[in-house]
Amino acid sequence: MVDARGAAAGCLAGVRVLDLTQFEAGPSCTEALAWLGAEVVKVENPKGGDPGRGSFGAAPGRDSWYFLQLNANKKSVTLNLKSPRGIELVKELARKADVFVENFAPGAIERLGLGYDVIREINPGIIYAQVKGFGAGSPFEDNLAFDMIAQACGGIMSVSGERDGPPVKPGATLGDTGTGMLLAISILGALYRRKGTDQGERLEIAMQDAMLQYIRVCFATQAMIGKPAGRAGAKLFSGGNPPCGIYPCKPGGPNDYVYIYTSRANPAHWQRLAQLIGREELAHDPRYATGAARVEHEAEIDEMISVWTRQHDKHEAMRLVGAAGIPAGAVLDTGELLADPTFETRGIMQTMQHPGCGPFKMPAWPVRHNGAPPALKPAPLLGEHNDDVLSSWLGLGADAVKGLRKDGVI
Amino acid sequence: MVDARGAAAGCLAGVRVLDLTQFEAGPSCTEALAWLGAEVVKVENPKGGDPGRGSFGAAPGRDSWYFLQLNANKKSVTLNLKSPRGIELVKELARKADVFVENFAPGAIERLGLGYDVIREINPGIIYAQVKGFGAGSPFEDNLAFDMIAQACGGIMSVSGERDGPPVKPGATLGDTGTGMLLAISILGALYRRKGTDQGERLEIAMQDAMLQYIRVCFATQAMIGKPAGRAGAKLFSGGNPPCGIYPCKPGGPNDYVYIYTSRANPAHWQRLAQLIGREELAHDPRYATGAARVEHEAEIDEMISVWTRQHDKHEAMRLVGAAGIPAGAVLDTGELLADPTFETRGIMQTMQHPGCGPFKMPAWPVRHNGAPPALKPAPLLGEHNDDVLSSWLGLGADAVKGLRKDGVI
Repeated sequence: MVDARGAAAGCLAGVRVLDLTQFEAGPSCTEALAWLGAEVVKVENPKGGDPGRGSFGAAPGRDSWYFLQLNANKKSVTLNLKSPRGIELVKELARKADVFVENFAPGAIERLGLGYDVIREINPGIIYAQVKGFGAGSPFEDNLAFDMIAQACGGIMSVSGERDGPPVKPGATLGDTGTGMLLAISILGALYRRKGTDQGERLEIAMQDAMLQYIRVCFATQAMIGKPAGRAGAKLFSGGNPPCGIYPCKPGGPNDYVYIYTSRANPAHWQRLAQLIGREELAHDPRYATGAARVEHEAEIDEMISVWTRQHDKHEAMRLVGAAGIPAGAVLDTGELLADPTFETRGIMQTMQHPGCGPFKMPAWPVRHNGAPPALKPAPLLGEHNDDVLSSWLGLGADAVKGLRKDGVI
Repeated sequence: MVDARGAAAGCLAGVRVLDLTQFEAGPSCTEALAWLGAEVVKVENPKGGDPGRGSFGAAPGRDSWYFLQLNANKKSVTLNLKSPRGIELVKELARKADVFVENFAPGAIERLGLGYDVIREINPGIIYAQVKGFGAGSPFEDNLAFDMIAQACGGIMSVSGERDGPPVKPGATLGDTGTGMLLAISILGALYRRKGTDQGERLEIAMQDAMLQYIRVCFATQAMIGKPAGRAGAKLFSGGNPPCGIYPCKPGGPNDYVYIYTSRANPAHWQRLAQLIGREELAHDPRYATGAARVEHEAEIDEMISVWTRQHDKHEAMRLVGAAGIPAGAVLDTGELLADPTFETRGIMQTMQHPGCGPFKMPAWPVRHNGAPPALKPAPLLGEHNDDVLSSWLGLGADAVKGLRKDGVI
């Protein structure tokens, strides 16, 4: 399977992305394009670059793991955007680019003189894509946002947490990566139309707006019950067919649980489960035989299942419940996922060989193209591709690049 | 802005998607393609169709809100896959399709005689895309999965919940829609390459694997601290720069909180906040002046801020904190989001005019293409496009279609 790696990388061969993004919402979007083979050129401040390089516990002089993860397979060019020549070079690169992406604070790109109206004049065929916290026309359109602000304002937190507890922010960075994925879809749609026509397009996404895409089902719940969707711990707020939820396993650590789900669509799930836990008599007992009846006895049923799950560790419980034909999943943590050898053999986890930051095992793009996910290439060092890109995109020679360096432009 | 609606719809004009998906992971993927203008034809069982139609509290004889949301802008054709002629028609449609997508249980599509090897023979240029719960090569590759199983096994739940509480399943359906978005990206990449070359491709995604994409930052945390990333309620597990989290607002309902975040990258956030809450003296007090010092006094600081936030409702608190230049967001629920008029004027929420299910307001595709999100068209009635598609794709006349109906094939 490993031999097929790189199949995906050909998808966007020849597509040039000028990437003025930083932190996560923007970089996650351009990284998806890089996984599929686009030439993504990060434009970074010569002094330190993307602030994500030095954040999140980065060791002095090293890039953070966070940065490495979000910038795999990209190139880096340094340009001083406070220098007129730096801005001029962005425009020259934009003339050669197919896609331009930025996620600066509201108004910043326009203040730099690199707004859509300017770039479109230079390159009418460009796809110009922007991420902001709040949409144009929102009362908060000038406000800053970060992942957690989007998760609060976009409804995600209101449907995450214990039933009677406060809202929880999921560990998944939906405000950032969740937004980036949706913008990548629209960029790719625009690229498809553009191929052969050179039709440019402006794309804008707001992190708050993007959150609604991930909780659409909660809006269906709201329509059904006539009031806001709420929280239900590990269970389904919309009810579901008990048993459904996490059940404690030995030895009782913070993630020693197995998720068991018996589907409404398949009454056999409950019958199989009753048999598995050695309580065959329950399968046809009228108190438990139907989903509606089990709703009335949910706590009691959960306890009966827990008696069984507590005798097993979560891996064994998942194997036994799954093998009995009932949907089941152990609650796995990041350490367990990293240690699982099948992720590595399948190419879902790959190891970045990064100069200075050593080998770093990380999740790769999870879609298999003709049998394997795309191959991981290291995140770039700051300015690593100055010569490469300024030469191949703009035709600048070694002396010209040396001059830019001497003048503090790159 | 509303005038521009439909700009996106042109992106994938002429792209034909043969859609054998049901419930959410598959349908969310093909819906993204439909928003961008692909002709997505759902192939459904003549008896009831996509099981999502009748689930999730659907009124008798009506489609569920859940189904409407996940199938906007698509067409529906009924085909009985238990009849040889039904299978034959799927193959004839596949011959005319650009993309084929399915998310049946493991092994089911092959048992139907519609596996990749078969379809590739018929149409070597097709993009054949599959969603499964677990990847080929995983010990669980034959297991069923649902959204919550993927969230358990893919690490999402291990990083969601209160610090000392059990894992929580976020209300966002990452296992389903989160997976569908990543597959859509790969399909679009493959479509881009195929345009002009007719190069086919097989794509596969596992819901468990897809989850890693959304918690990559937690793997960075694991690399940083050398142990699994954990849970932190509404705060950041990786620490962060206190104050950071949700603060209670009046009148004290379950979602009456405002998220306040003071960035590590900008010390002014804390100084502005101290001033806003009338405690200017704290801004330069050594006990609170730096992020590191505030980590030591987090509970105390949270209480000082809460004294202020409790005097305001969450909307007012968000306005005041945001206007002071500090990232802030009210925790909004599905009811508040539905009622916000700016979502409607901006086209982020649109109303489906569905025959039988009345007007239904729902989130639309959140990316603005040339100023507006794409326009919403209703989800199809079961078999609504039998004549249309069998005629336009296969050239069948009215009599032939009538015969298929009489024979129980459609």
